[in-house]
Amino acid sequence: MLLLIPGPVTTRPQVRQALAQDIAPWDNESRTFLTRLRGRILRLAGGSDAHTTLPLQGCGHFITEAALRTFLSPGGRILIPATGAYADRMIRLAREAGRIPVPLPMGAADATDPLAVARVLAADPTLSHVGMVYSETGSGVIHDVQAVGAVVRAAGRRMIIDAVSAFGALPLDLSTQPEVDAAVFTANKCLEALPGIAFAVARVDRLEAGAGNAGSWSFDLSNVHEHALRSGPGSFRFTPPAQLLAALDVALDFHDDEGRAARLARYTANMRVLYDGVRSLGLTPMLPPEHQGPVIVNVRAPGDPAWDLQAFVDALKSRGYLISNFYNTSLPTFRVGCIGAIGPDDMAGAVRAMDQALRELGIKQREPVQE
Amino acid sequence: MLLLIPGPVTTRPQVRQALAQDIAPWDNESRTFLTRLRGRILRLAGGSDAHTTLPLQGCGHFITEAALRTFLSPGGRILIPATGAYADRMIRLAREAGRIPVPLPMGAADATDPLAVARVLAADPTLSHVGMVYSETGSGVIHDVQAVGAVVRAAGRRMIIDAVSAFGALPLDLSTQPEVDAAVFTANKCLEALPGIAFAVARVDRLEAGAGNAGSWSFDLSNVHEHALRSGPGSFRFTPPAQLLAALDVALDFHDDEGRAARLARYTANMRVLYDGVRSLGLTPMLPPEHQGPVIVNVRAPGDPAWDLQAFVDALKSRGYLISNFYNTSLPTFRVGCIGAIGPDDMAGAVRAMDQALRELGIKQREPVQE
Repeated sequence: MLLLIPGPVTTRPQVRQALAQDIAPWDNESRTFLTRLRGRILRLAGGSDAHTTLPLQGCGHFITEAALRTFLSPGGRILIPATGAYADRMIRLAREAGRIPVPLPMGAADATDPLAVARVLAADPTLSHVGMVYSETGSGVIHDVQAVGAVVRAAGRRMIIDAVSAFGALPLDLSTQPEVDAAVFTANKCLEALPGIAFAVARVDRLEAGAGNAGSWSFDLSNVHEHALRSGPGSFRFTPPAQLLAALDVALDFHDDEGRAARLARYTANMRVLYDGVRSLGLTPMLPPEHQGPVIVNVRAPGDPAWDLQAFVDALKSRGYLISNFYNTSLPTFRVGCIGAIGPDDMAGAVRAMDQALRELGIKQREPVQE
Repeated sequence: MLLLIPGPVTTRPQVRQALAQDIAPWDNESRTFLTRLRGRILRLAGGSDAHTTLPLQGCGHFITEAALRTFLSPGGRILIPATGAYADRMIRLAREAGRIPVPLPMGAADATDPLAVARVLAADPTLSHVGMVYSETGSGVIHDVQAVGAVVRAAGRRMIIDAVSAFGALPLDLSTQPEVDAAVFTANKCLEALPGIAFAVARVDRLEAGAGNAGSWSFDLSNVHEHALRSGPGSFRFTPPAQLLAALDVALDFHDDEGRAARLARYTANMRVLYDGVRSLGLTPMLPPEHQGPVIVNVRAPGDPAWDLQAFVDALKSRGYLISNFYNTSLPTFRVGCIGAIGPDDMAGAVRAMDQALRELGIKQREPVQE
């Protein structure tokens, strides 16, 4: 069964097998292991001596909330380009944590316009931060964090990057983006490992400046940093999901072997086979080709009255391809991921299975309902 | 290698092996699975129709903070018997979350006195809650949550139980303790599964009353409950550590086969072999026998100038027994866990290994330094 949901992703058997062991988290071997793992992740992010890797138990929501709490003061204001479902997530996390998110409205298929960000920052000096989703799986659009970062830098403001479904495939070089307080991500997307562990790569000076901001011991990244200084870089703060870290380390070996750029090229090839494939079936991707990123393709639901997302998911599943049984676009769609330990042949197989599934369900009208 | 750290614990091979699979969290099979898992845990807690099981990504700190945020209003006051390191943890979590923890001072070797709790509650009507550690691994003492619960109930106050290192072994019947808002725990202690997933079993009426309290979307247990109502009991809120849930389910099969009372009896037998064993070696347990619980034995550090905790840990590790390389008692100790997929014979082997390790290190003076 291939997972195209898109994330948790399909992993390699060696990665999964590394889970199946008992591990003592603060043992000296574990300390050496974690110290090395933090360094590997720092290098993947283009981190310098000015940065550190902060591991956090849990999911993407948790590490995003932790970054918002640590780097924004209570009541602090953050501009968030409204790129889709994951920008909405950041907005809600900030609001419930007592920060003030200011959405920047934009079209669902559009890339974030750096000039629009610059204009809002110039007009509102109270905005200390810009929060930005790098790969918006709510649409499939990749947003240019380098270009937006440049205007944030020029305006003397700070930036938090939600790189959850980008990290490990899309380029990130924090050494060239001093305006970034932190990039946050999880193990179970483009790193091709398992869910339950998250990371921030963050600036040490900003972690020190953020001490006392969080209003939560659990989500205080400054304290995670302080703990590592006090107890050593291999000492996880609180009980870690040690098996997930072991699997991630194996997954990073595969990442080293492949290289980031080659991984991005593989995902892009996956996306192209899928995107062209669904069009050849008479289906309609949500995005025009020039805005379609390599991580997820959202496909408009067929207009046929026989369309039933769960029945379609079940028919694909019986053929070995698992896609999401929900969508998070405003129009009805189905979501297909292009990431994980899969290649273009797998995507070609998925397209053939979609054709068979549509026939099985009696879907004749494959174009979406006209708005 | 046996893990006696104590938790993460030694698991059975079948439990670990259940980790090694790719899982799609919101697939219909996963929904059926999670619905059933929540029910299993609810029954283990003695939950009734008035209760629900709330899973949360992460560790014991996270679920404890989530319960404090959800059931206490911002600025709310909670009495916390100062039983040791894990009570201190609850105190810090509450304080940093903007609640007011009020410690109840007590001796490190003492059980919580219900009458002392009753007196403080009677004198201070602003204390809405009592927060209590059931099994204090900072000392090894088990605290009587039923007796303390009775005085909390009589005083018309509410209670939060940190059952992290108790749940699955020590008795808990929430149907008889309506004063308890929630009991919180993790998978990697007496349930003999892996770290990275936590749970609360909580009262539905109190979850509904607590909506809006949390000041954190991630840690809002009312929202976890609301999500389950809206999206179905098998829909995990945010990406779950799906592999850890699969392993927990296998661990619960073993728990069913053994039974809670038999598991407690096994741990108690483990503790007895260890406790009597270290005394026969000339070592001194921190607690007198009548206060020694079945989960962890803290042993006073030998007074010999050659004593070195890490060297002792290494010498034991070379013999297949892994204990903690830190302690969280005020006096120097070493910690040995009695929980996990281990039996009295394993503990007897650990005691023999300790004797060999002490000889290897040249420890002649095994009694602790006099205070």
